[in-house]
Amino acid sequence: MAKQKKAPRPKAITPKGFRDYFGVEVTERTEMLHQIAGVYHRYGFEALESSAVETVEALGKFLPDVDRPNEGVFAWQEFDEKDQGDWMALRYDLTAPLARVYAQHRNDLPNPYRRYAMGPVWRNEKPGPGRYRQFYQCDADTVGTASMAADAEICAMLSDTLETVGIPRGDYLVRVNNRKVMNGVLEVMGLGEDQAAKDNVLRTIDKFDKVGESGVRELLGKGRLDASGAYIDGVGLSDDQIEPVIAFLTSKADDVAKTFENLRGAVGASTVGAEGIAELEQIGDLLAAGGYGSDRIEIDPSIVRGLGYYTGPVFEAELTFEIFDEKGRKRQFGSVSGGGRYDDLVKRFTGQSVPATGLSIGVDRLLAALREKGRMGGTSVGPVVVTVMDRDRMADYQAMVAELRNAGIRAEVYLGNPKNFGNQLKYADKRNSPVAVIEGGDEKERGVVQIKDLILGAKIAESATLEEWKERPSQFEVGRGELVAKVREILASQVEGSADG
Amino acid sequence: MAKQKKAPRPKAITPKGFRDYFGVEVTERTEMLHQIAGVYHRYGFEALESSAVETVEALGKFLPDVDRPNEGVFAWQEFDEKDQGDWMALRYDLTAPLARVYAQHRNDLPNPYRRYAMGPVWRNEKPGPGRYRQFYQCDADTVGTASMAADAEICAMLSDTLETVGIPRGDYLVRVNNRKVMNGVLEVMGLGEDQAAKDNVLRTIDKFDKVGESGVRELLGKGRLDASGAYIDGVGLSDDQIEPVIAFLTSKADDVAKTFENLRGAVGASTVGAEGIAELEQIGDLLAAGGYGSDRIEIDPSIVRGLGYYTGPVFEAELTFEIFDEKGRKRQFGSVSGGGRYDDLVKRFTGQSVPATGLSIGVDRLLAALREKGRMGGTSVGPVVVTVMDRDRMADYQAMVAELRNAGIRAEVYLGNPKNFGNQLKYADKRNSPVAVIEGGDEKERGVVQIKDLILGAKIAESATLEEWKERPSQFEVGRGELVAKVREILASQVEGSADG
Repeated sequence: MAKQKKAPRPKAITPKGFRDYFGVEVTERTEMLHQIAGVYHRYGFEALESSAVETVEALGKFLPDVDRPNEGVFAWQEFDEKDQGDWMALRYDLTAPLARVYAQHRNDLPNPYRRYAMGPVWRNEKPGPGRYRQFYQCDADTVGTASMAADAEICAMLSDTLETVGIPRGDYLVRVNNRKVMNGVLEVMGLGEDQAAKDNVLRTIDKFDKVGESGVRELLGKGRLDASGAYIDGVGLSDDQIEPVIAFLTSKADDVAKTFENLRGAVGASTVGAEGIAELEQIGDLLAAGGYGSDRIEIDPSIVRGLGYYTGPVFEAELTFEIFDEKGRKRQFGSVSGGGRYDDLVKRFTGQSVPATGLSIGVDRLLAALREKGRMGGTSVGPVVVTVMDRDRMADYQAMVAELRNAGIRAEVYLGNPKNFGNQLKYADKRNSPVAVIEGGDEKERGVVQIKDLILGAKIAESATLEEWKERPSQFEVGRGELVAKVREILASQVEGSADG
Repeated sequence: MAKQKKAPRPKAITPKGFRDYFGVEVTERTEMLHQIAGVYHRYGFEALESSAVETVEALGKFLPDVDRPNEGVFAWQEFDEKDQGDWMALRYDLTAPLARVYAQHRNDLPNPYRRYAMGPVWRNEKPGPGRYRQFYQCDADTVGTASMAADAEICAMLSDTLETVGIPRGDYLVRVNNRKVMNGVLEVMGLGEDQAAKDNVLRTIDKFDKVGESGVRELLGKGRLDASGAYIDGVGLSDDQIEPVIAFLTSKADDVAKTFENLRGAVGASTVGAEGIAELEQIGDLLAAGGYGSDRIEIDPSIVRGLGYYTGPVFEAELTFEIFDEKGRKRQFGSVSGGGRYDDLVKRFTGQSVPATGLSIGVDRLLAALREKGRMGGTSVGPVVVTVMDRDRMADYQAMVAELRNAGIRAEVYLGNPKNFGNQLKYADKRNSPVAVIEGGDEKERGVVQIKDLILGAKIAESATLEEWKERPSQFEVGRGELVAKVREILASQVEGSADG
């Protein structure tokens, strides 16, 4: 019974962990990135677009090995004459390429170099719900200066950016902390050169968000009974050693001067600690001078995310308005951007330490926030559809659509099989069209066109009892010469209508 | 003498065949694509952004083999539990992903589906001068209709697009031809089922641009003596067989009706030829109805590029203004966009033939053309630089820069080491800054700032003999409160100045 099989057809599927973006998913992101680029530009930052592909050597973090060369990144080997080419990979962030570009072009770039970059990055990770292997990043960094004015500027720019894209003041807060203060705390704890213990402390404070002050106290001490009932071993520090950590994490006061006083208590005689506090004070002064008060940006030592990665100031932008999570519980929207100072960016290429500071915006998170706030619709108005009543008169319909487009109105002629008029209206519906234009043989003879308000028509269909709408016509007959004017009038009334509703 | 070597530092180089884009190279392209997207949107096209990565199976054209899996594309094998995952690759154009997306989502997409896509594509080819392995494409296609109205619309949209980005009418021409007319010519040549001979004819007419009528005549006949002196064997056709080809290629007349008459002569009794001519006539009628005359779009059977690839109408946009090539010779700028109808896009996935037509714009070519025409500067005005005379008063400078930015003026404070003031002015020069702001201790005390017009300053320095400029001051002292107003005034005068010059 077995038939001879043809070569199977290829499967039409998006590769696992990747996705396609349609219509407004694309245009709303483009629009948001356009607005962000405007702010970055105003701050003197220059665009940089490096290639998506880098040598694995330049990316650095991931090293290929023979068996499994693409752990974490998408990598492949170039073929040269001897089949022994370089390993290449897709960039996994926008910072590693910046390091390469800066090291390569540093003699031609202004110093300091302010640059922004936006674009996709790729991660060869196990995909999960809402977690994709290609996603957008949007970064701004200043390379080549140790001045706190650079860090303050990044914070101010982040604040301006959020307001520009549509997050109102009061719905967000940029929080600033400093790794050096934490280093001061580690110093006064008397851990000496015990790097393992220090790493344990850093890992523990990273849980501060979740377990709170008492949890951190237990985890740094004898240990803690987990919510699940499991017992987590503690770091085994004494109460005296734990105290500076707690003092650091809980130092935030209503008054910023009091916050700094608390921090000074936490770092005691540590030089690096004092330096960290002085840096935070400088940032605070610079921001105040620029008019950025604590309603927009504040010093907050309880922000610990990223403290382990960065070498100086760290920043985080949190959206403070509430949303309902997937279980229907209210919670704050949370972080949409983070950044900080990292001073060894270029060293691995050149041997010279180059100070740098920057931020990265979570593009998809911020887009989701804007949709939550109703700043982006997630839907777009479709084109006016000129229907085809007589396929031999396509030129007439083409003329109409050209008139509409020339008047700046989004419009298209129906290009499918025109035989079934119902299909044309179904198509208009699928396209989210606001208006359909109809010109049959009778209309042509009388020099008129029918113009259907599809939005109003849908409303009338939905609530047929509403006398008010029943009385309002949703279809108009106008002279052929009034086509553009009438369509424009209906589109304007729809915008008003949606503003009312 | 041999020292123990450290691990070598990674090389900071752009991978071979790739490049980095800086500043205006990025922003001018973004701006142009933004304008193009505006036109496409007005025509009812929807954005689509598919992932950069596809399965090699879906891309289709390139099949991996064990030894050299990435011929033509950048490809790698996914690792699953058994290390036998799919082969993946970077997309090499935007059409193959459209085919996959349409086959995958066809039940949810409007039918016909008008979509546009813009973004980088990758080719694993030997790089050459000006030829990169990552470059931008910008496509628009209509899938799911055989109507010539779709093809006419693409041509009209191409014309509108060119004018919108800044190519004036008269400096470009969209030319339209039809593969079916060529097929009609092949039919009347009496080549029967001799596919090799037909392919030879197609390859030869592709050289029409270069060798002209007599060259094509020789190449189709007995052969031709090359410019280099080499003898090229001919296809060996008789004069009777060659005649229809020549009639086809030279059929363009000043009057479009006459062109069609010539074409009818060339295809004789061929049904497919007559069909092709009828299609061209339809396109011509539809464009005329939309107001697109032969000053913008014309039927031109001498356009043969792409005739082999497409299945129906083909289009090409040529820029007709002259430039000087690298050898200083005048020549036309040439093609910036091409497209046509290709009806088997989706068939390999679904088994069903789906008609489609579309265009692709050469993004880098069009950008180069706009720079030729002076529509895009290739340089941008840098930010106002607030210099640092006293590093302890950074907060004062920060306040100035915030005021300027809040007024919408691109501005930055100098973030390098402020000790050497000359370095600050050098930096401003490198940044292409229009204005520098200076406030030393003396100015601070007197409540004033110095504002330096750097553009005028440079002009004076260049032509110190010009009395007119010598008399004009390039540095102004104004009250601190007039900072923004004075900077704005100078910026405005510079815009006027550059319009004059």
